[in-house]
Amino acid sequence: MHDTIVALATGGTGALSVIRLSGTKAKQIAQAHVARNLASVPSHRTVLTLFKTLDKILVDEVLLLCFDHGKSFTGEETVEIHCHGSSYIQSTILQALIASGARMAEPGEFTQRAFANGKMDLSQAEAVADLIASNSRQAHAIALNQMRGGFSHELSNLRDKLIEFASLMELELDFGEEDVAFADRSTLLALVGEVLSKIQRLIKSFELGNAMKDGVPVAIVGAPNAGKSSLLNALLGEERAIVSDIPGTTRDVIEEVLNIDGINFRLMDTAGIRETHEAIEAMGIARSQEKIGRARLVLAISDGNNHAQLRSDEAWVEEIKAKYPDKTVLWIANKKDLNQAQGTDLAISALSGDGLEDLKKRMSESIQQDFDVERETVVSNARHVEALQQTHIYLKAAQQGLEQGLPADLVAMDLRAAMRSLGNITGEIELDTDILGMIFSRFCIGK
Amino acid sequence: MHDTIVALATGGTGALSVIRLSGTKAKQIAQAHVARNLASVPSHRTVLTLFKTLDKILVDEVLLLCFDHGKSFTGEETVEIHCHGSSYIQSTILQALIASGARMAEPGEFTQRAFANGKMDLSQAEAVADLIASNSRQAHAIALNQMRGGFSHELSNLRDKLIEFASLMELELDFGEEDVAFADRSTLLALVGEVLSKIQRLIKSFELGNAMKDGVPVAIVGAPNAGKSSLLNALLGEERAIVSDIPGTTRDVIEEVLNIDGINFRLMDTAGIRETHEAIEAMGIARSQEKIGRARLVLAISDGNNHAQLRSDEAWVEEIKAKYPDKTVLWIANKKDLNQAQGTDLAISALSGDGLEDLKKRMSESIQQDFDVERETVVSNARHVEALQQTHIYLKAAQQGLEQGLPADLVAMDLRAAMRSLGNITGEIELDTDILGMIFSRFCIGK
Repeated sequence: MHDTIVALATGGTGALSVIRLSGTKAKQIAQAHVARNLASVPSHRTVLTLFKTLDKILVDEVLLLCFDHGKSFTGEETVEIHCHGSSYIQSTILQALIASGARMAEPGEFTQRAFANGKMDLSQAEAVADLIASNSRQAHAIALNQMRGGFSHELSNLRDKLIEFASLMELELDFGEEDVAFADRSTLLALVGEVLSKIQRLIKSFELGNAMKDGVPVAIVGAPNAGKSSLLNALLGEERAIVSDIPGTTRDVIEEVLNIDGINFRLMDTAGIRETHEAIEAMGIARSQEKIGRARLVLAISDGNNHAQLRSDEAWVEEIKAKYPDKTVLWIANKKDLNQAQGTDLAISALSGDGLEDLKKRMSESIQQDFDVERETVVSNARHVEALQQTHIYLKAAQQGLEQGLPADLVAMDLRAAMRSLGNITGEIELDTDILGMIFSRFCIGK
Repeated sequence: MHDTIVALATGGTGALSVIRLSGTKAKQIAQAHVARNLASVPSHRTVLTLFKTLDKILVDEVLLLCFDHGKSFTGEETVEIHCHGSSYIQSTILQALIASGARMAEPGEFTQRAFANGKMDLSQAEAVADLIASNSRQAHAIALNQMRGGFSHELSNLRDKLIEFASLMELELDFGEEDVAFADRSTLLALVGEVLSKIQRLIKSFELGNAMKDGVPVAIVGAPNAGKSSLLNALLGEERAIVSDIPGTTRDVIEEVLNIDGINFRLMDTAGIRETHEAIEAMGIARSQEKIGRARLVLAISDGNNHAQLRSDEAWVEEIKAKYPDKTVLWIANKKDLNQAQGTDLAISALSGDGLEDLKKRMSESIQQDFDVERETVVSNARHVEALQQTHIYLKAAQQGLEQGLPADLVAMDLRAAMRSLGNITGEIELDTDILGMIFSRFCIGK
């Protein structure tokens, strides 16, 4: 932690690149390559200077931006080198700084140092990686809120309540032999109930957070001639331009992505739908079931003019809705006149596009109905939800202990375990180095 | 030229991205998105602030870096926004700034403004694009020297001499009726001869400059069993790691590239050499000849233990050397014991790698023998060499005019044309807007 690390902070080649040095010797290492006296450069100031190798070969005219210890992203003395963005210049400057004593940073090491130096807690640090990876408005909003400490603030409130609870219990332990009960049991139970319901709400938000971060999996199902392919094309037709407008989103994508109200919907197994030569009879119920199992939102489409199909599909849709109460199932009638067929949730005309806006509104609402993302904290990190689930288990045990009138020291033990679980999220407790390594290794190098 | 332009200055996605705003309203446009009062931020200072859309939706925590009018790269008021490097954040900030009145910059428009505002001359501006594109030490050195004004300085010296020449001629014109000759003809001829030889040297340097910028084309030729493939593998074996170490160099490359002493050598038509099933008899002399025609350096290899081959190759190599006096032809004996076969230039063992270092030294020397790149100006731009060739033609005409005793006004006309051609390079004369557009359109956006 005491060496000085270096990495390219910007991506690829471009007009400009930024190379970042952080550590106690950042200025000293940079000084070996520039004539300008860096000791006299105030924090947050840029200076134009020539960058040379140790052999005094000129590499580039660069802007140096210095940050004093305690005033940088990492909390350490930091020097940013803004150079021309050729790969030759990038690698020559990196090699020169390494020759002067810097070390190539590991992925996420700058953020890990920011965490270690108390510039942010662990959940905020994790949000930095999410922020860089986010490619939809809602995923971005969740990561930004988490990075700015919204989630940490929520956890700190929960922790305050647990500490209040713990103080009352410990007071009883201090006077254990006198068998007094300072804390009114019903007050304690109300408090633990309140904390439990808040934690449950956070756990519940993960499904939404995860959907927003990774996209909402959508299954389009229906009889072979019901209009699956037309619905897919109608949905993608207008939206594709918007999606492909954001660089990177279409890379490595195996599913079609549709962005509605800032949320990405992943239209699953669209190759199967688009495949015109597919053996329709071979697809069968099993494949549809499997697809529905992986989806969060199911769009079941029927030919709205085919009464026999509507009748047979009605039973099938009812069955899905009953089997998966947690999923949103929208039964859609594909019908030219848009008259809603009996029993269906809405009607569209895939051909003319009529009714599509209504469908998209319903899709968007199905995800957002329970949460107000702008105001409420949404958990989007699997590690966090696991810690919350652990906290929930210990608090439940404490609740039962209170209800069953167990001794205060047993209840206090569960309480301490709950606080420890919660502390895992923000890193307030000592975390195993391996766990920290795992958390930061998913970052890109240079962050 | 009076609107404010914006573009992403860094490449792709990464930990950090830099968005650059330049123009009279740069601060005013940025101000619409941040709470911090930018009017009070001194030039070259960074401030940490929140960036919001016009709808007050938070986009990111950013560092703003302000440059005052006259003190920036473009010479205009400039604001750099350093944000997290996700494509979502990049596009949201760009859209927000466009909504507040900025315009997306054209490729090269920032540098074009730097030129228009007198921050650099045209040859320096052009070098910026070369610098960003350079991927070898020598190409980088040429571009950097040119960007820093080395070439401009050289041209300015030539121009001073031409002006001296012109003054003397014009003095005679003023006293035309009196038929005096202020300028001693032999002094004038010496002066024009000196300028001509300097221009010739610059024109000659273009072959080297072009080779360094784009790589030196190398042909490996020889009888089917002489060891072409072994030589290729031996050359690439050690070097490939170094070449592929530099990101981007191997992308879109159709030839193998070898870097020796900071110069890229492009090994032409290596697919043909590597192709084991090629119909060797079909390749024939014609194909070798065509390949040699495109090369600058020819490596002719013979089996050093095969005396019959050595004898027949000797005549062939002599023929090539005679036919292409401008190319460097190295005749290599591939021989285990490294005893140089009679008549060949050097011996190597492709199998053991012995003699390879000597070969590489010879390859490197063949390119650098005439010029000292570190000290001498090398022209690497086709537009510049064209202008120099034009200048050369007009000066030659002036020289002939002097020698033939033509009237001063005729000689002065050629002289003015020569100065105009030279001025094309640095943009000292008025250039056509189309020409300027063509020059800057080869830049990347954001520069």
